[in-house]
Amino acid sequence: MKARVTVTLKAGVLDPQGQAIEGSLRSLGFDGVASVRQGKVFDLVLEGTDEESARSQLNSICEKLLANTVIENYSVEITN
Amino acid sequence: MKARVTVTLKAGVLDPQGQAIEGSLRSLGFDGVASVRQGKVFDLVLEGTDEESARSQLNSICEKLLANTVIENYSVEITN
Repeated sequence: MKARVTVTLKAGVLDPQGQAIEGSLRSLGFDGVASVRQGKVFDLVLEGTDEESARSQLNSICEKLLANTVIENYSVEITN
Repeated sequence: MKARVTVTLKAGVLDPQGQAIEGSLRSLGFDGVASVRQGKVFDLVLEGTDEESARSQLNSICEKLLANTVIENYSVEITN
């Protein structure tokens, strides 16, 4: 079973990487970009076929390793 | 207009970050994870409301800045 986990910064948390990209886009002449926020994506392949238990395992993986839930949100999506 | 750009490594490209996460998951007792690949996600806010021109600008942004198309794939999604 394949899954995608997306981890993004919570609103209000400073994102220097995103700001650097905004600056670079302006330098390159892309004027129509109002804001950029950078996050992370993880594509996982899980053994087993039970979606329910996969989701519960993925939530646990996010809480323990992939996301810092003080400053980040995560979302889990089963992709097949 | 909001958009999400997802940048992932092409198949076959070595992903040391993903491998480190696989190792950490095993150490934490998550045995059911066969593989992990890490990528990047960018949430952009664009001025203007024309989806066609937004997509074309986003593709150009990906080619020039956000993705290294030698080793990475990108996908563009308009989220509102």
